[in-house]
Amino acid sequence: MGREGQLLDLLVPLERGNGSRVPLHTQLERALRDAIRAGRLRPGAALPSTRALARELGVSRGVVFEAYGQLVAEGYLVARQGAATRVAGGAAPAPAAGRPTRGLRAGPHDLRPGRPDLAAFPRREWLRSWRTALRRAPDPALGYPDPRGAVELRDTLSTYLGRARAVAPDPQRTIVTTGATQGIALLCRVLRDRGHETLAVEDPGFHLHRLTVARAGLTPVGVPVDEDGLDVAALAESGARAVLVTPAHQMPTGVVLSPERRADLLAWAAEVDGLVLEDDYDGEYRFDREPIGALQGVDPERVAYVGSASKALANGLRLGWVVVPEALARAMAWERVAADGGGPLLEQLALADLVERGELDRHLRRTRRLYRRRHAALSAALAEHLPDAVVPGVAAGLHVLATLPGHDERRVLEEAARLGVTVEGLGTMRAGPAPPDAVAGLVLGYAHLTEQALARAVAALGEAVRRARA
Amino acid sequence: MGREGQLLDLLVPLERGNGSRVPLHTQLERALRDAIRAGRLRPGAALPSTRALARELGVSRGVVFEAYGQLVAEGYLVARQGAATRVAGGAAPAPAAGRPTRGLRAGPHDLRPGRPDLAAFPRREWLRSWRTALRRAPDPALGYPDPRGAVELRDTLSTYLGRARAVAPDPQRTIVTTGATQGIALLCRVLRDRGHETLAVEDPGFHLHRLTVARAGLTPVGVPVDEDGLDVAALAESGARAVLVTPAHQMPTGVVLSPERRADLLAWAAEVDGLVLEDDYDGEYRFDREPIGALQGVDPERVAYVGSASKALANGLRLGWVVVPEALARAMAWERVAADGGGPLLEQLALADLVERGELDRHLRRTRRLYRRRHAALSAALAEHLPDAVVPGVAAGLHVLATLPGHDERRVLEEAARLGVTVEGLGTMRAGPAPPDAVAGLVLGYAHLTEQALARAVAALGEAVRRARA
Repeated sequence: MGREGQLLDLLVPLERGNGSRVPLHTQLERALRDAIRAGRLRPGAALPSTRALARELGVSRGVVFEAYGQLVAEGYLVARQGAATRVAGGAAPAPAAGRPTRGLRAGPHDLRPGRPDLAAFPRREWLRSWRTALRRAPDPALGYPDPRGAVELRDTLSTYLGRARAVAPDPQRTIVTTGATQGIALLCRVLRDRGHETLAVEDPGFHLHRLTVARAGLTPVGVPVDEDGLDVAALAESGARAVLVTPAHQMPTGVVLSPERRADLLAWAAEVDGLVLEDDYDGEYRFDREPIGALQGVDPERVAYVGSASKALANGLRLGWVVVPEALARAMAWERVAADGGGPLLEQLALADLVERGELDRHLRRTRRLYRRRHAALSAALAEHLPDAVVPGVAAGLHVLATLPGHDERRVLEEAARLGVTVEGLGTMRAGPAPPDAVAGLVLGYAHLTEQALARAVAALGEAVRRARA
Repeated sequence: MGREGQLLDLLVPLERGNGSRVPLHTQLERALRDAIRAGRLRPGAALPSTRALARELGVSRGVVFEAYGQLVAEGYLVARQGAATRVAGGAAPAPAAGRPTRGLRAGPHDLRPGRPDLAAFPRREWLRSWRTALRRAPDPALGYPDPRGAVELRDTLSTYLGRARAVAPDPQRTIVTTGATQGIALLCRVLRDRGHETLAVEDPGFHLHRLTVARAGLTPVGVPVDEDGLDVAALAESGARAVLVTPAHQMPTGVVLSPERRADLLAWAAEVDGLVLEDDYDGEYRFDREPIGALQGVDPERVAYVGSASKALANGLRLGWVVVPEALARAMAWERVAADGGGPLLEQLALADLVERGELDRHLRRTRRLYRRRHAALSAALAEHLPDAVVPGVAAGLHVLATLPGHDERRVLEEAARLGVTVEGLGTMRAGPAPPDAVAGLVLGYAHLTEQALARAVAALGEAVRRARA
């Protein structure tokens, strides 16, 4: 038997007759390919002649010929005139498929920020809107999309954002994105193309946005935040001509950009011929008064508005939007073409339908009531279990910063993890290494937790703080 | 009346009583905001005192106070101690919302490439899979996604691609993307980060990919294509250490990378310690024989496989995938985080369900039969109406290149447009300006047209060619 026999041992038996729908040559081809991939047939190994293998397998020579031909075409085998067909030199075995990893597993007390209550997500209404979208979409709508997003959604969003967030409405400058992050990434690339090299960011500020800015080709430059929001005087000294800010509810401190600072910021943008990127990530939620309208509405040529459905509905929808100055609208559409050719249409049409039917408003009313209660529960729990904690900012959004003057943040986080509390430290949000006198802080997401769960989580956190001090 | 009277003329009447659900102060706020935006209240204009306006409107002073306060907070108004409240200097009027533009409108004969038959899209099955996905997804699945995509889809895709395209399967290196374009963009950024400055691309090749490559920070360098596919000797001289190729069915020439060239390409990649980006954009469709398996399967550490559902199902789904060398998997996931935080989950779960239920295979079998007939109809029509046309490449994919030796491409395209034929010229696909002896060519997409429509379109095209020659 020799060579052929060894090879045959490697092969899975071929299924014959009408029972198998897979042609014999394909079965042989797969068996050989798998053997090469698994390393059972080594690079350089000679294969039997088509005649010999056909005889061994009891198939026609054409079957083997076809299988070899296919694998030669794919590069697994090398055929040379008058010599044996061999396994190609470069045909390396594939690595064993590992088990897929899961995301970071949270402890029993999950206080990570940025999560709405996903149990409140209006599944039935979303299904209804989605089904409507699929039913109504004509065939061409399933083709390559407008890179700016479905015109139906851009129209609807313009009206909605104008009404709910005082955004200056214009569907022509509205671009639907795969979440707020993409909006920021695209804006950064447009700025980079126009000669910007840095982008000022709030310090502390949302850490993943710094990654996004850097990967889009701009150097993020931290500018301090105080109780009135971004320090615009420090911004002016930074040398940057564009800035990413969270005016309605600063992430993570929770402060609101003061009226004076808003005016100063727009004056700065005009002076440096720059751009303000307004990240309105949770602007729908304010519990003590009406939300502050978007800065973009005041000066739409100097401010690009960035928002998403992540907090208002669900992060997993991956639906966001930007409203940009007219001068940037075309460049943004092209950046989107280059980045991914535009987003999926049916989801966009579904969101348009959901908003048109008033379901987003209804959902926001419901969740505002829910989150207001949870915010109160969190505040009460903090007062009870972390009496030293200082909470800056206003009652808004889906998180609260609790600073812990005189505590060691790293130790608190360690003890918290030990007690099953998953929580983000203020340190993560700093643009640079924490200064020696930096105050410890915890960024507490609460919207996804019931009042009972919040009470338990904060009690555990209080215990962690006590242990960290001991 | 004076100032107040003029202002009042500008304001819409306030709706009072139980009929209106909008509080009076909000109505006033909106009216003022709209007036400022529309330019009816100019920057710097002084507003009446709260007392005076309250009297004029017949509302309590608190209503006006609240409205002014809100607009000061938003930056539309500026309040100074002891002076009149004024319209802020920077509060520019918003431009009138233009009518949304639509995409390029095709003529009656639309021969543009890249479109599957969207009428064949399995809507009912897609709805069923989507509904299943929504029903099964637990609440946390609606939160921030794994940036690599749903593990269920990565598992399913690995199996499917291994079986259908001979891709070396590994869910850990499989990343779901918003279409093939995003896969290429992310890969380019990873390469850029590792010191690459150029990326070799096929010439002619898909023009939008050159945009994607350039916007991702690499300079695309054209490498010629002949009847055996990419010229690997020319690639070696290009200085690039990475290349974007379409081995199974070259875009746009339709040729297949020959077995020798496949081996040469892998040898080159090993020698320069480089990467091959395999764009398998229509690899499922081959009409004359079994499709050639993916190059990636031969050397998974040197080849990144890029694919999508755009041709197999619908472009508008915006679902694609990459399978990358192990050394790049982590970097790719981070690039995805930075680019847009990951894609929407429900669509991914729906696709996984569709594939698991065998519906993708069924759809592919159906459309293969359909497209084979259409390909034959196109070939027959070309033989009849464009007898001079030369068609390189194999019977595969969703388009055909028809070269027209001795013709002037620009004139043919002009005449075609005049006769209502929307068609892409080979010139668009060239990496640089066409050489003087460049052959004229038309890239003909046919999969979305019935046999009758194809016959009509090609007849019109034949007429255009005759007129162009006259």
